Amino acid sequence: MASSAFARCLPRHCRRPHRVHLFNSIQHTHAFPRPRLLTTSKPVNSTVPPLPPPHASNSSSTNGLRLPLLAAALAALAAGGALWIAPRSLYTESLALTRHGEKGGKKDDMLSLFSKHSNKGREEHEINSVPAQRPRFKRSEISTHTSKAAGGIWIIHNNGVYDITDFVDVHPGGERILLAAGRSIDPFWSVFTIHQTPETKELLEQYRIGDVEPPRDAIEAAENAAAEERDRDALKDLFKFDPKRDPELITHAAYPCNAEAPARALVDAPITPTEKFFVRNHLPVPDIDTTTYRLAVQGPGIPDGVALSLEDLKKLPKKTVTVTLQCAGNRRKDMHDVKPTKGLQWSQGAISTATWGGVLLRDVLKQAGYNTPPSTTTTLPDDDQAISHVQFHGTEGYGASIPFHKAISAQGDVLLAYEMNGEPLPADHGAPIRVVVPGYVAARSVKWVDRITLSDEESWSHWQRKDYKGFSPSTEMPCEEDYENAKSIQELPVQSAVLLPAKGQNVTLTEQGEMVCKGYAVSGGGREVVRVDVSADGGRTWTTATLKPAATDARPGRQWAWSHWDAKIPVSSTIKGKEVEIVCKAVDDSYNSQPEKMEGIWNMRGVLSTAWHRVTVKVAGAEGEGKEVEGR
Amino acid sequence: MASSAFARCLPRHCRRPHRVHLFNSIQHTHAFPRPRLLTTSKPVNSTVPPLPPPHASNSSSTNGLRLPLLAAALAALAAGGALWIAPRSLYTESLALTRHGEKGGKKDDMLSLFSKHSNKGREEHEINSVPAQRPRFKRSEISTHTSKAAGGIWIIHNNGVYDITDFVDVHPGGERILLAAGRSIDPFWSVFTIHQTPETKELLEQYRIGDVEPPRDAIEAAENAAAEERDRDALKDLFKFDPKRDPELITHAAYPCNAEAPARALVDAPITPTEKFFVRNHLPVPDIDTTTYRLAVQGPGIPDGVALSLEDLKKLPKKTVTVTLQCAGNRRKDMHDVKPTKGLQWSQGAISTATWGGVLLRDVLKQAGYNTPPSTTTTLPDDDQAISHVQFHGTEGYGASIPFHKAISAQGDVLLAYEMNGEPLPADHGAPIRVVVPGYVAARSVKWVDRITLSDEESWSHWQRKDYKGFSPSTEMPCEEDYENAKSIQELPVQSAVLLPAKGQNVTLTEQGEMVCKGYAVSGGGREVVRVDVSADGGRTWTTATLKPAATDARPGRQWAWSHWDAKIPVSSTIKGKEVEIVCKAVDDSYNSQPEKMEGIWNMRGVLSTAWHRVTVKVAGAEGEGKEVEGR
Repeated sequence: MASSAFARCLPRHCRRPHRVHLFNSIQHTHAFPRPRLLTTSKPVNSTVPPLPPPHASNSSSTNGLRLPLLAAALAALAAGGALWIAPRSLYTESLALTRHGEKGGKKDDMLSLFSKHSNKGREEHEINSVPAQRPRFKRSEISTHTSKAAGGIWIIHNNGVYDITDFVDVHPGGERILLAAGRSIDPFWSVFTIHQTPETKELLEQYRIGDVEPPRDAIEAAENAAAEERDRDALKDLFKFDPKRDPELITHAAYPCNAEAPARALVDAPITPTEKFFVRNHLPVPDIDTTTYRLAVQGPGIPDGVALSLEDLKKLPKKTVTVTLQCAGNRRKDMHDVKPTKGLQWSQGAISTATWGGVLLRDVLKQAGYNTPPSTTTTLPDDDQAISHVQFHGTEGYGASIPFHKAISAQGDVLLAYEMNGEPLPADHGAPIRVVVPGYVAARSVKWVDRITLSDEESWSHWQRKDYKGFSPSTEMPCEEDYENAKSIQELPVQSAVLLPAKGQNVTLTEQGEMVCKGYAVSGGGREVVRVDVSADGGRTWTTATLKPAATDARPGRQWAWSHWDAKIPVSSTIKGKEVEIVCKAVDDSYNSQPEKMEGIWNMRGVLSTAWHRVTVKVAGAEGEGKEVEGR
Repeated sequence: MASSAFARCLPRHCRRPHRVHLFNSIQHTHAFPRPRLLTTSKPVNSTVPPLPPPHASNSSSTNGLRLPLLAAALAALAAGGALWIAPRSLYTESLALTRHGEKGGKKDDMLSLFSKHSNKGREEHEINSVPAQRPRFKRSEISTHTSKAAGGIWIIHNNGVYDITDFVDVHPGGERILLAAGRSIDPFWSVFTIHQTPETKELLEQYRIGDVEPPRDAIEAAENAAAEERDRDALKDLFKFDPKRDPELITHAAYPCNAEAPARALVDAPITPTEKFFVRNHLPVPDIDTTTYRLAVQGPGIPDGVALSLEDLKKLPKKTVTVTLQCAGNRRKDMHDVKPTKGLQWSQGAISTATWGGVLLRDVLKQAGYNTPPSTTTTLPDDDQAISHVQFHGTEGYGASIPFHKAISAQGDVLLAYEMNGEPLPADHGAPIRVVVPGYVAARSVKWVDRITLSDEESWSHWQRKDYKGFSPSTEMPCEEDYENAKSIQELPVQSAVLLPAKGQNVTLTEQGEMVCKGYAVSGGGREVVRVDVSADGGRTWTTATLKPAATDARPGRQWAWSHWDAKIPVSSTIKGKEVEIVCKAVDDSYNSQPEKMEGIWNMRGVLSTAWHRVTVKVAGAEGEGKEVEGR
């Protein structure tokens, strides 16, 4: 079934029997196990117990979004693993296996299970086999196929027509896939980019029944255009709960919203104004009723599992922490400019800082019944081998995890926040509750969190297992084994950027013949930035910048917020009228420093783009031409 | 008093009144307060209480060494600060001031105190003023001036003669300076390199009484040579307690011993054999009687101070931790080769790993009476503002400190070790007790520790305040202010090195046409190495190395030991007979990576030399010439 190119990439582990748990939650009512969280291949010997109701008052939930997230699960299948994509009866069977801790069946058994239920047309449509003549269907005909009753559920992808009737029930993202019924799925995939993998397309190809008939005349072409317009409208409908946003945010993608903070809002501002705080949403903003909201907390340390209301949470001691959140893709554009990467072209504004108010995760775990082992001198909480990760699930479908030692440490300061800069948390930033993991990549600070699971393994979400990982510069297209071997990004490396002057700006020197520069610097893991070097000659000579005081609530080893810096670099008057390259680089208190060039840290996803920041500006001539640097 | 060049470097803080506490310990008997620990300028508002006897049974101590460590204290004076170099009466006065928390006198008062007692000849010998004709003294005459009774204590430095009679009593290193009486002090300073600063030489110049008379004939020349030989013997006498060492250690300095582990002993060895463990001694190995040995523990959290015997310590729960110790100067030679640095030319062997057995520092603090605040959810031990550092004092005179949060953290694993690889700790590695600070630069793992002080400030030792700090590449000669602003090296950045093949080696490819490489990688702060990239083309293409399993006792976030790696790099057969550059670079679990070049991290001390490791080798020709890589 796998193409030969793909087969070459097959990792060893994929030749062992594995299952894909598409359903790591069990509905309270034991109703049809609608998939709730995108997962990827997961060994059978999981110790995670069944879940309590995530929203106790709303078990049939129209509250959370059910998202069409195919890719990772399908990828695992395509890569030779087995997939638990099972309707009710099968699911019960699989669950029983899992519950009793059996090692599961052989790979072939798994595959046969899969074949029986969702492998329609597999023999007919071998991958990479192109029939000499495929049936052609008019758009008008395709558009009528929106249900079983209507003769099946068809979708369009590129120029192909696919009958996914039998797949809908087992789609990991649930029935949201029906939004594309009778239509092109491509606009949806342009949003839910998680599907844009060779593996997903390969699997879809098995359901191909023909091609789209090209329009024969202008009228048909117009009809097709109108249909495409309707598709776009349907897409926008997914985002109806997204809030209005500050127009100064620099939007890289509107659906879902990905917008960076303007440099002007970051300069000299230890705390980013809430409305300018960068927005990085992976999925539509969900609509959550705070009165029925419940946070499920579960896992081996919490035998019964609990569901906490907002009021329950707010009864715990309130804690505020000033934390900088930075996207793993911050400054991707700088890396992309050296060699193309895959992802949104963030400049240096996918980073912001807020003072978050909420409750400590460790308090919540305690409240939920997790017993911190007595603080003896020899037994430590994180010596507990049964729990090594804390998984977070967001209502909108996102998921991630952090190491348990971070969550439970008295020095970890992991927060479940309900306030941002003294105000209630806004919808865009995870209301009513989001996780804030200080010192970690923002991708672990899960918004709209509704479930917390203690586990002996990382989250099985795409974003934990298939994204937000770093690779060698020579790994141009990671295969399954590469993903498995790569460490999830958690703590971030040291980073800095010039905010002022901007690239290409005309800069006037001070009367003393100095170049004025301002920027930020930050490191992960609570490490403090101890020095920023700035150069106005491309890195040949350096001026040590002045570091502004860090966040006032910081403790030694817990410097969760960035530092702002400024520098006046003495330059020769001979550079007037010329282009100069301003460079900055930071050093943290572990004396980690930024690498000089992007080439050595390049990775195909363009994450961890932390090489020296370089900004080319033009120095105004002796006549004073050009715009003066704003001297705030 | 300061030269104009020096004055330019004067930091702002030195224009404020300061004192130098040369005596941060008070002898139990209140006998003459012989200086015990090299200190540098320290503000008066210290909260450190008086010390208990460091060796309770041996308060007049001939046990520990009293070392001639002038430089830092003198430097502070030379830099415009004031110096508490005071005989008994004066000391009592200064102590009273400190005790009552007064801000101390004005700078001028401090200077006048100093002048009264130890500033002989100051007016006569202004710095940088060269008298037209200085008296000349024969070596034979100088050699008779070894005591007050003999007409004064004279020493030789370069070609100068100095009468230090009045200085001996206030020498921070104690009476050990008398070893140089009547002789050249230069051989001693070649060992105690701490003195080799412009400030020390400047201060000494105030005591100059003349020049050495050149030998007039062969007989006098021979006599001088014999005298120099005796000086060298006297020097060696300081090291009479240094143990015999493994001849395979690569010795960079014999007195004190600085010797790196041979690459052969490090390849593929997760634990370094004890006798091959690198030795980095700052001073002579002390002779310690374990029956009278006491560890003093004191500070604000421990009102009364205690003195613990070896037996007391061994009664606490025993803990073993596998920890890699790395010298801050490891790989200095690589940095030095790019641009000269100051220090021993370590290659990649100033690093080793042992399994240390001992007791947790936090247990010892508890035993000493320090009450860990109750582990409530809002109050953390390191929120205690009165204690932010833990200072360690070594019997031989060395000193250093670590942040309190590291010492007290349940995840810190800071050990007071009495075993190394299952055997009693050897003399060279700090017997009977040394500190082992996992994840930190080895310079904080103080050997022969005899005093632990909780404090609100870092150790005032030279090695905490004036060494083991990182500077910008543009800081070619750090001034006082630079030292003050620079952060002490604690956690180390990510590092890696090729151990095999060696530089310049003739390498034979495998039958499959691969280059076999082996090495180590390590990071600080408990961060695990997650990837090592190796290149056989200078860094254009990379092969991901295979990481060997890390130490078995490691916990998440507490990876204190290095990882070994090996790689088989596919290379073109066209490189046979040519030189190739092997490069390795590591990435830790914070995704910090090594910088590409030394230039961006160059610093005058050559510490933190962590750029990509490059090893040029010659590939054996098709005829199979050259030595094969040892395939262990």
